[in-house]
Amino acid sequence: MKATPQVLKGTRDFLPARMILRHHVTDVLRRVFERFGFEPLQTPAIEYAETLEGKFGEEADKLIYKFEDRGGRQVGLRYDLTVPLARVTSMYPELVKPFKRYQIAPVWRAERPQKGRYREFYQCDVDIVGSTSMLADAEVVNVAYQSLRELGFASFRILLNNRKILAAVARKIGLAENAAVMVWRSVDKWDKIGPDGVRRELEAAGFTSATIDQVYQLLDLQGGPAEILSSLRDRLGDEPLGSEGIAELDDVVRYLDMAGVPGAFYQVDLHMVRGLDYYTGPIFEIVVDEPKIGSLSGGGRYNNLVGLLGPQDYPAVGISLGLERLIDVIDELGMGPPSVRSTVTQVLVTVFEPNLLGVSLDLATSLRTTGVNTEVYFGSEKLGSQLKYAGRKNIPLVVIAGPDEIATGEVILRNMRSGQQQRVERGVLLAAIQSEIEQQGHELPVTTTR
Amino acid sequence: MKATPQVLKGTRDFLPARMILRHHVTDVLRRVFERFGFEPLQTPAIEYAETLEGKFGEEADKLIYKFEDRGGRQVGLRYDLTVPLARVTSMYPELVKPFKRYQIAPVWRAERPQKGRYREFYQCDVDIVGSTSMLADAEVVNVAYQSLRELGFASFRILLNNRKILAAVARKIGLAENAAVMVWRSVDKWDKIGPDGVRRELEAAGFTSATIDQVYQLLDLQGGPAEILSSLRDRLGDEPLGSEGIAELDDVVRYLDMAGVPGAFYQVDLHMVRGLDYYTGPIFEIVVDEPKIGSLSGGGRYNNLVGLLGPQDYPAVGISLGLERLIDVIDELGMGPPSVRSTVTQVLVTVFEPNLLGVSLDLATSLRTTGVNTEVYFGSEKLGSQLKYAGRKNIPLVVIAGPDEIATGEVILRNMRSGQQQRVERGVLLAAIQSEIEQQGHELPVTTTR
Repeated sequence: MKATPQVLKGTRDFLPARMILRHHVTDVLRRVFERFGFEPLQTPAIEYAETLEGKFGEEADKLIYKFEDRGGRQVGLRYDLTVPLARVTSMYPELVKPFKRYQIAPVWRAERPQKGRYREFYQCDVDIVGSTSMLADAEVVNVAYQSLRELGFASFRILLNNRKILAAVARKIGLAENAAVMVWRSVDKWDKIGPDGVRRELEAAGFTSATIDQVYQLLDLQGGPAEILSSLRDRLGDEPLGSEGIAELDDVVRYLDMAGVPGAFYQVDLHMVRGLDYYTGPIFEIVVDEPKIGSLSGGGRYNNLVGLLGPQDYPAVGISLGLERLIDVIDELGMGPPSVRSTVTQVLVTVFEPNLLGVSLDLATSLRTTGVNTEVYFGSEKLGSQLKYAGRKNIPLVVIAGPDEIATGEVILRNMRSGQQQRVERGVLLAAIQSEIEQQGHELPVTTTR
Repeated sequence: MKATPQVLKGTRDFLPARMILRHHVTDVLRRVFERFGFEPLQTPAIEYAETLEGKFGEEADKLIYKFEDRGGRQVGLRYDLTVPLARVTSMYPELVKPFKRYQIAPVWRAERPQKGRYREFYQCDVDIVGSTSMLADAEVVNVAYQSLRELGFASFRILLNNRKILAAVARKIGLAENAAVMVWRSVDKWDKIGPDGVRRELEAAGFTSATIDQVYQLLDLQGGPAEILSSLRDRLGDEPLGSEGIAELDDVVRYLDMAGVPGAFYQVDLHMVRGLDYYTGPIFEIVVDEPKIGSLSGGGRYNNLVGLLGPQDYPAVGISLGLERLIDVIDELGMGPPSVRSTVTQVLVTVFEPNLLGVSLDLATSLRTTGVNTEVYFGSEKLGSQLKYAGRKNIPLVVIAGPDEIATGEVILRNMRSGQQQRVERGVLLAAIQSEIEQQGHELPVTTTR
């Protein structure tokens, strides 16, 4: 007997019930992204290794799935969707700028699999290439905000910071570039290990208490965006990068307000650093406090990445929503709408006996033509077996057409949840189905096929 | 100066205009698949190499993208969507049978790239696992038929055959298994190289004229399905596999008829063989005569594949539509509906001057809330530049709100195609936009966000 085959650790199958929820989420995201005028883009899973390497930082480069193809070329699976976008920007200079695109697609990382970390997972990215306006930065944040709202997220926090402000802090204190990298790597864990944990890490790395105090003093500002930015202006206004960074965040906050994003949803958080090397300006992260799941989304401005890949540089900004995290929260909080079921099927048409098969097939065809997701039972077993199949699959409605019903031009419509049956004239079957489906809180998109 | 980066040969970027068409096609397919009660399934791109190998035939195995991962495991990118389905069937015996699933996803083959052949391409598959009823075979054919019709295909031919009939022909003539494989490989090229070409190939391979004549005589039947099956019964009815295969096709044809698939769309074609090793019963192929592009779709019954992968066998049947071929035909025949444009954006809101930015952002937010895909111009350049941007991007409508309009509670709505402008009260802007969009033949899904 053969052993049961497996999937590779860190990769997953999504069976129908999970997949229906994933479709719901990506459908909402796609609709919101397009509503903001982001265009769909698709890039290959396999890229030349040199396109992928040297963009994310040393640690990340080790996680790229690389291999040699048949032609001896060094290739790899994409690590994110941003680097492929930068490549596209270089290859097709004819793309009208600002180029606004979204991509919802899997990426691969040779991570050690653990809870919430996968080797294949989906990113949902929006990016704007070719604009230096902070309107672009505010817009990607707004898209993420709107996406979460439409998915039913009632409570989350959008954290705003700016790499320029962090650079000005480092200058102010006199940290060399290497030292600054170490400091920010620790500070980024503020939410996870707390101020004391960060302090211990920095002390262990050899920073003096005086230096650490200076960092803490400059970063630890409380209050709304206006207050924080105003305090920062007092402290960092004499550093050119500092005043630039502050002015940028000031614009982002104003534009978010003008676009109607409620102030309760965003804050300036100078401890939020983001891991990737390529950010150059404003950076964003969206977190939820319940469940304890970390960040749902991250992004920022990266004005030098396209130039790393090709002959011309373009400013760019983007944000990425992690599909797996979104789904985890939706699951945990039971946020899936009632239209998300464990089966797409709305009606099972039973087969009363072999020589009435034609009636059942005909019924199924006419229901499908009017937009009802319909299955026909593949056989003519006893009605009980057929109903059992509907029950096991969670199909909400069953249509039965026996000789008696056929004689009177009727069918029986059975509600599987209540067990109630009604005789319905064939002419009004669709209306009866619609009414049943609506009572169960589902949507029935009734469309007529061409 | 850096060189412009490239994509790997045989892989492609899909820029927005192409991607919008691809979305249109996959949206239609998904809708049709779900209307037949097929459930979505998603499997990882990377599988264990041993899952992939030994299922398709020797030639195909060479085309699997294989590599060793960091843990020293032999892995590969999926070659099709059927073998992953067979693995899923083995791994999750709790899936209610018949298990009807669809998957629309990329597959990878290390092919030599050439016109119409790619290393990464999308398959759109429906399969039914766990039923031996020919209702299942007829249904996957019906789904493919309905999909093509809803995509606007007016003319195509569904070819039906059965591997059991081919096996019976081989037995009748006394061909050994190896010889039969060679014969069918040549016969499969009937449409490409014609009967004479096939004969030359078979002669070159050492078959006698007498054998070739026998093959031709048994296969070369003309007429409707009923005629061909009746002639076959006379010739092969004494071969058990032959009569089984004939009875199966007879059922498929009857069920297609009962389900309302017009007879003009399907025919029995005994020269259609299909390449893959794993088929065991009915096989299907869908071809178009114009443009000359070969087959759009192929499939068949494979009752032994799941057992190759795991401890238990399940009968199964499926069909696959090739997304790239569908798109090629839609392109060639100009079949894309008017709602398929080169941009998703329906309205550009211009910015009259920096201190009116708030008005523009507010307008954009309210249009988006009512379901209109809306961009805001990122800047306050001269109106001419902003209109030029809309023109270059093919955005159909532009909204302009200057001080005069703001004073009277109006905006200007400009139709970019005609250049005509109208002043519209803000309260009826949505209605005016809808009317413009409809006149241009597009759909505007007006939904209110929660």
